[in-house]
Order: sequence, then C-alpha cells, then structure tokens
Amino acid sequence: MSTDVVPNRWERRKARTRAALVRAAQSFIAAGKVNVPILELTQAADVGMGSFYNHFESKEDLFQAAVADALDGWGVALDTLTAGLDDPAHVFAQSFRLTGRLHRRHPDLSKVLLRNGVDLARSDTGLAPRARRDVEAAVRARRFAACDVDLAMVIVTGAMIHLGRLLHDQPDRDDGAATDHVAEDLLHMFGLPEGEARDICRRPLPDLDPPP
Amino acid sequence: MSTDVVPNRWERRKARTRAALVRAAQSFIAAGKVNVPILELTQAADVGMGSFYNHFESKEDLFQAAVADALDGWGVALDTLTAGLDDPAHVFAQSFRLTGRLHRRHPDLSKVLLRNGVDLARSDTGLAPRARRDVEAAVRARRFAACDVDLAMVIVTGAMIHLGRLLHDQPDRDDGAATDHVAEDLLHMFGLPEGEARDICRRPLPDLDPPP
Repeated sequence: MSTDVVPNRWERRKARTRAALVRAAQSFIAAGKVNVPILELTQAADVGMGSFYNHFESKEDLFQAAVADALDGWGVALDTLTAGLDDPAHVFAQSFRLTGRLHRRHPDLSKVLLRNGVDLARSDTGLAPRARRDVEAAVRARRFAACDVDLAMVIVTGAMIHLGRLLHDQPDRDDGAATDHVAEDLLHMFGLPEGEARDICRRPLPDLDPPP
Repeated sequence: MSTDVVPNRWERRKARTRAALVRAAQSFIAAGKVNVPILELTQAADVGMGSFYNHFESKEDLFQAAVADALDGWGVALDTLTAGLDDPAHVFAQSFRLTGRLHRRHPDLSKVLLRNGVDLARSDTGLAPRARRDVEAAVRARRFAACDVDLAMVIVTGAMIHLGRLLHDQPDRDDGAATDHVAEDLLHMFGLPEGEARDICRRPLPDLDPPP
C-alpha cells in the first residue's frame, strides 16, 4: 500500500461524511423539521458531532447545501438529456416536463423545493438559472416572443413549485399529463400557436435518472 | 350606565386582545421568526400570557389566523372593487393587478404570503379561492378557453407569489408595470388575443384601501 492511499481514503471518507450530512438534512427539511438541533442531524447522518463543523459553519449552511445539491443534481441531468435537441422551445419544454415529473418521483426532494422554492427560484445554481437560460435562448432564436425574462421566470418558477403542491395534494392525478398541460400553457403564453405547443409537449421523453 | 355595557366592553376588549395577537404574529411571520416563543408574542402584543390561550390553542393556530386574516381582508376589498364589472376577464385581471400592487404597499403582509404561499394557495379562504371563482366565471362566460382550473390556478398563484419575491428583490422596478405585464401574459395564456389582453390590463384601476 503506497503512502498516498491514506489521504485518498481520508478524502473519500470526508466526502462520505459530508454527503451523509447533506442527505440527513434533506430528510429533515422534507419533514419540515428545519429547527432540529445539529446533534440530531449528526446522529441521523451517523457521524460524530465534531465532524459537522469540519464541513459546515452552521445548520443553515448545511440546509442550503442540501437543497442546492439536490437541485444541481437534477439540473446536470436535465442538461445532459437536452444536449441533442435543436429547437430551444423543445429544450425548455422537455426540461419543464421532466422537472414536473420529479415531484412524485422524489417526493422528499420535491418537498424541499416546495418549502424553499421562492428563494431557490432566484438562486444562481440549480434549476431556475437553467430555465432562464432556456427561455433566453428561445427568445434569441425568435421561437418565444420577446419578453421581460425576469417576469417570465416569475410565472415559470411559480408554476413549477405550485404544480408540486397540487401533485402531492392530489395523489390520483396523472402527474405527467398535468405537467405537460402546464408546459403547453406556458409555451402558448410565450407565443407559440396552441397546436404547436401541444405537439411539443406530447413528444416522447427520455428517461431521467435519479439525481446523483 | 346599564348592566349590558359590561359584557359589551368585555367583548370589545377580547376582540382587541385577539387583534393585537394577530398583528403581533403577522409582524413575527414577516420577520421570518416563526419559532418565537408564545411569551414573546404576548409581550409584543402587550397582552398577558394567560390571554393567549383564551384565543388560540397553539402558536401555529395563531399564525394561521394571522395569515388568513390578512388575506381575507384583501379578498373582501377586492370583491367590493370588482362588484360593478360586467366582463369576468376584466374582474380576474383587475383583482390580479391590484393584488400584485399589495406586495410593495404592504411589504410585511406580502412576506407572510411569500413564506406561506404554497400552502395558502390551497386555502378555502383568502385570495386563492376568489381567483379560482373568477377564472371559473370567465370560462363559463367563454371569455377564457376551457381549462383544467386546478392547473390554471397552479400558474396563477405561483406567478402571484413569485412576483412578490421579484418586487422585493428589485426595489427599483415599477411594481404596477410588472404586475400588469404578468396579468397580460396570463390573459393571453387563457386564450384572449394579445391586443385585448393588453387593453384590459391597461384600464384605470380603482384605489385599493389598506386591509382592515
């Protein structure tokens, strides 16, 4: 065993500890327990109390990291899946349709989003900046009508988060159909004719792997 | 002084105590301090700790009442102001345009809405059920295209709440113009031609008095 195995093993262990804390925080946020003591977080993560401060300055710091981690994981996956598409309206619609389906597929992370969505919508990581980029690309390509992108994002992010609430409240509702319907309404709002908006929102979707 | 003055005075005092607690709770929610001890709430309201339990079962109970009170006050005011309008699309647009302007006009109450909006959007009191009623009326009158009203409300309530976040984040932005723009986009989404949507959202607005 060479000597450089030791730091590597230590690094891997450090990363595992951080990931365990992030996952524990994600569970607590999903359960609405944002005022849980740090001790309870470290116990749930099965790590020592001292480890916490090697990674995070405060509980709020951990919670922010937990939410950002989940959303960025989804964002990277969405980017991969839209990489081959030519039409920016299609890119926007596909990412919206896949994101809407995550509410049921990952209910705990969805509830993180519901509890923090208004603030996350203005984060510079995660899903919101990617949706903004897609809207801007579609406007530049004249697929969407010229618009105030800040205001468009108000509608897009608000719809995505409130859609999650509806899908949790109405467990019998078809989440795919509901999401596609909202996406279609948004495309129409952005200036696409109704028929074309419907067509784009009925195209087959790629599989979205679970977030990392 | 007749004997029945005493219970009246007592009733009035009881109502004042409740109102003081509700106002105190609204301030704490606006400041994000939802985990404040009950003692601190009663001190802020300048009422005795014992009075609290004459009115509310728990702190959560008070917070819910505080939010519901604020939104219902706005709802009643909006209903009064739209009472004389014939066109249900105009009714929907006017209430949306006035509500959007409340974010800046009553920033504390707006922040209550931002913090609790996803849950409040499905309350059976306040603003959301009124917006739903207006959308349904417009669909019945064939002013709006037939739609799944649950999904339409996802977009309407989501947009209203995220608009508030944007208006607080961008203090230099004209809140009236921003709100009218979002309202116009929503009318267009509901099937109104762009020109007509714009015309409806540029009509003069009545004054909206402060909530009771």
